[in-house]
Amino acid sequence: MDNLRIPGPTPLPDEVLKTMSRQMINHRGPEFKQIQDDVLTDLKKLFMTKNDVFLLTGSGTGGLEAGVVNTMSPGDKVLSVSIGVFGDRFAAIAKHFGADVTNLNVEWGKAADPDAVRKALQADPRIKTVLVTHNETSTGVTNDLKAISAVVKEFDKLLVVDAISSLGSIEMPVDDWNIDIAITGSQKGWMVPPGLAMVSVSQRGWQAHAESKIPSFYWDFGKAKDYLAKGQTPWTPAVNVIYGLEVALKMMLKEGLPNIFARHARIAQSVRDGIKALGLSLFAEESHASNTVSSVAGSNGLDTRKLVKIMREQEHVVLAGGQRTLDGKIFRIGHLGWVSDDDIKGFLSSLKKVLPQAGFKGG
Amino acid sequence: MDNLRIPGPTPLPDEVLKTMSRQMINHRGPEFKQIQDDVLTDLKKLFMTKNDVFLLTGSGTGGLEAGVVNTMSPGDKVLSVSIGVFGDRFAAIAKHFGADVTNLNVEWGKAADPDAVRKALQADPRIKTVLVTHNETSTGVTNDLKAISAVVKEFDKLLVVDAISSLGSIEMPVDDWNIDIAITGSQKGWMVPPGLAMVSVSQRGWQAHAESKIPSFYWDFGKAKDYLAKGQTPWTPAVNVIYGLEVALKMMLKEGLPNIFARHARIAQSVRDGIKALGLSLFAEESHASNTVSSVAGSNGLDTRKLVKIMREQEHVVLAGGQRTLDGKIFRIGHLGWVSDDDIKGFLSSLKKVLPQAGFKGG
Repeated sequence: MDNLRIPGPTPLPDEVLKTMSRQMINHRGPEFKQIQDDVLTDLKKLFMTKNDVFLLTGSGTGGLEAGVVNTMSPGDKVLSVSIGVFGDRFAAIAKHFGADVTNLNVEWGKAADPDAVRKALQADPRIKTVLVTHNETSTGVTNDLKAISAVVKEFDKLLVVDAISSLGSIEMPVDDWNIDIAITGSQKGWMVPPGLAMVSVSQRGWQAHAESKIPSFYWDFGKAKDYLAKGQTPWTPAVNVIYGLEVALKMMLKEGLPNIFARHARIAQSVRDGIKALGLSLFAEESHASNTVSSVAGSNGLDTRKLVKIMREQEHVVLAGGQRTLDGKIFRIGHLGWVSDDDIKGFLSSLKKVLPQAGFKGG
Repeated sequence: MDNLRIPGPTPLPDEVLKTMSRQMINHRGPEFKQIQDDVLTDLKKLFMTKNDVFLLTGSGTGGLEAGVVNTMSPGDKVLSVSIGVFGDRFAAIAKHFGADVTNLNVEWGKAADPDAVRKALQADPRIKTVLVTHNETSTGVTNDLKAISAVVKEFDKLLVVDAISSLGSIEMPVDDWNIDIAITGSQKGWMVPPGLAMVSVSQRGWQAHAESKIPSFYWDFGKAKDYLAKGQTPWTPAVNVIYGLEVALKMMLKEGLPNIFARHARIAQSVRDGIKALGLSLFAEESHASNTVSSVAGSNGLDTRKLVKIMREQEHVVLAGGQRTLDGKIFRIGHLGWVSDDDIKGFLSSLKKVLPQAGFKGG
């Protein structure tokens, strides 16, 4: 079996794989209600929130679209804090639906500076909403969301967070950090297949929802809330991904949040240490290097595209390349969800073996 | 195990169940490309189309929203031909995104009259687009889509069809019938879990897409087409539902379309015959009764809500009740996808047993 080391979809534990093949049930019957209630109770523990949480059937990007269309109106001033491809996507969605987006774009590989956020909010008091990526999957950088949120809340703005590749893997207490809308995706740290976006909505989020004038039908949080009161979802949900999520959440709660965070931190450190020991350069600034995905620069003759290909074909280790302007310049390693120290040892030993074939002259 | 006799999610065959628990893969790698290519090649055979076909991660209603936001502009005149809950939902989506909707609403339980469609199109030449439900799941009625399409094409209008509970189960040759946008959902006759909408887009559909001014990001057919050229989807797809679909499509092609249609027709007839033999009344007009879902009226003292409950609790047969104004007035039986004569025999024998407990005095 391949060692799937991309930042999602992530490998599924056996317990989850097993439950994926359970027979279908009525999504408007009592059995589904019980499963969804159970899943949402557990999700709230992992989101560390008392806010409403919903399961939306779609990709993570659908969750981002939901975050936009439920909270904004055309012409609304929005500050986008972007540190990579997914931050840019979030801004593009808001712009696409008519928001007036001010871009606070940070050099790729670096984190956003909370003071820069403060200056941007001071510069334009009309800004209503701030979009932030907690963990930027394209660069392997984690923003200091706690500090950014504190600034956003100094100015009493709505905070909408792409937490797709952070929630459930690295610390992100939704209530303590005053996150109004938090969005994550099933195929990341949650150890289940893609097909579900999970979102939380604060009271402040509901106020924004009430005022929002962007049309939303499929993604409407209001409909999600109405149907949840009946133990249902408005539209037929991805039932078997929810089966998987129920099992995965029990595994996560059994491990415990502090242990999950510690494991991700330890494994990420061993990835970074191993990368450096091979003479490779980390792309992300180390002070904000992500504990869920690492990025490595193509230094010293290393052809990153070739490396990704050789690793897959010869070593059965599946890595991710760079996206957009980083294509051919970096490669990325996912280490979130169901990942062990042995997975990383295997990855590093394969990497060491094939580096010379991919042109690497360093080390 | 329950005899799941709702009109979706439908039961999964063993071969599909087995493949649902395959390990994850990279959705931007060669293995996914091969699977998606294979699935789309087979889907085109079952859609009977040379048009573009896309896999969208979402519920069927997401597919309907995609059909609207990709083809219309605010203010566009749209004719909605609705014969039930899902036709009304389609119209509501179009209206929600700003279309100027003319409603041709037909009494629930009956099919639309192609002549009425002609009159509506004659009455307002500004109509650009016609929305039609092929098979109305809420009433168990199948429209004469071939005849309706012929009328729509007399007037050279765009035809957008909700084929969620028809395609793959009852005849619907997309190209022969000139369907510009056909939308279906994985959890119906396709025998896989919910989580995918499958859509086809004609040349005419692409023209409408080029002119459309409703903002669409997640559902944008243009992005789907761009990424398909690379063997990918724009956003992380519901990988394991696609695994299931690949297997289910092979089963369907092995059975053969004429045989699938004949099986659905035969089984539907045995449901209707059995219902009548018990002294119950069919709700849908028999000339247009659906071959995928049947509806039964709550006549002669029958409490349909109670019946659905007793059937589930005592007989482990899961039926659907009525929706909206039909709640408490009808019950529904799904017989699409992986359904056999024995499933129906079991359902009818359970039904016969419990009818008196649900207040039925007839028969």
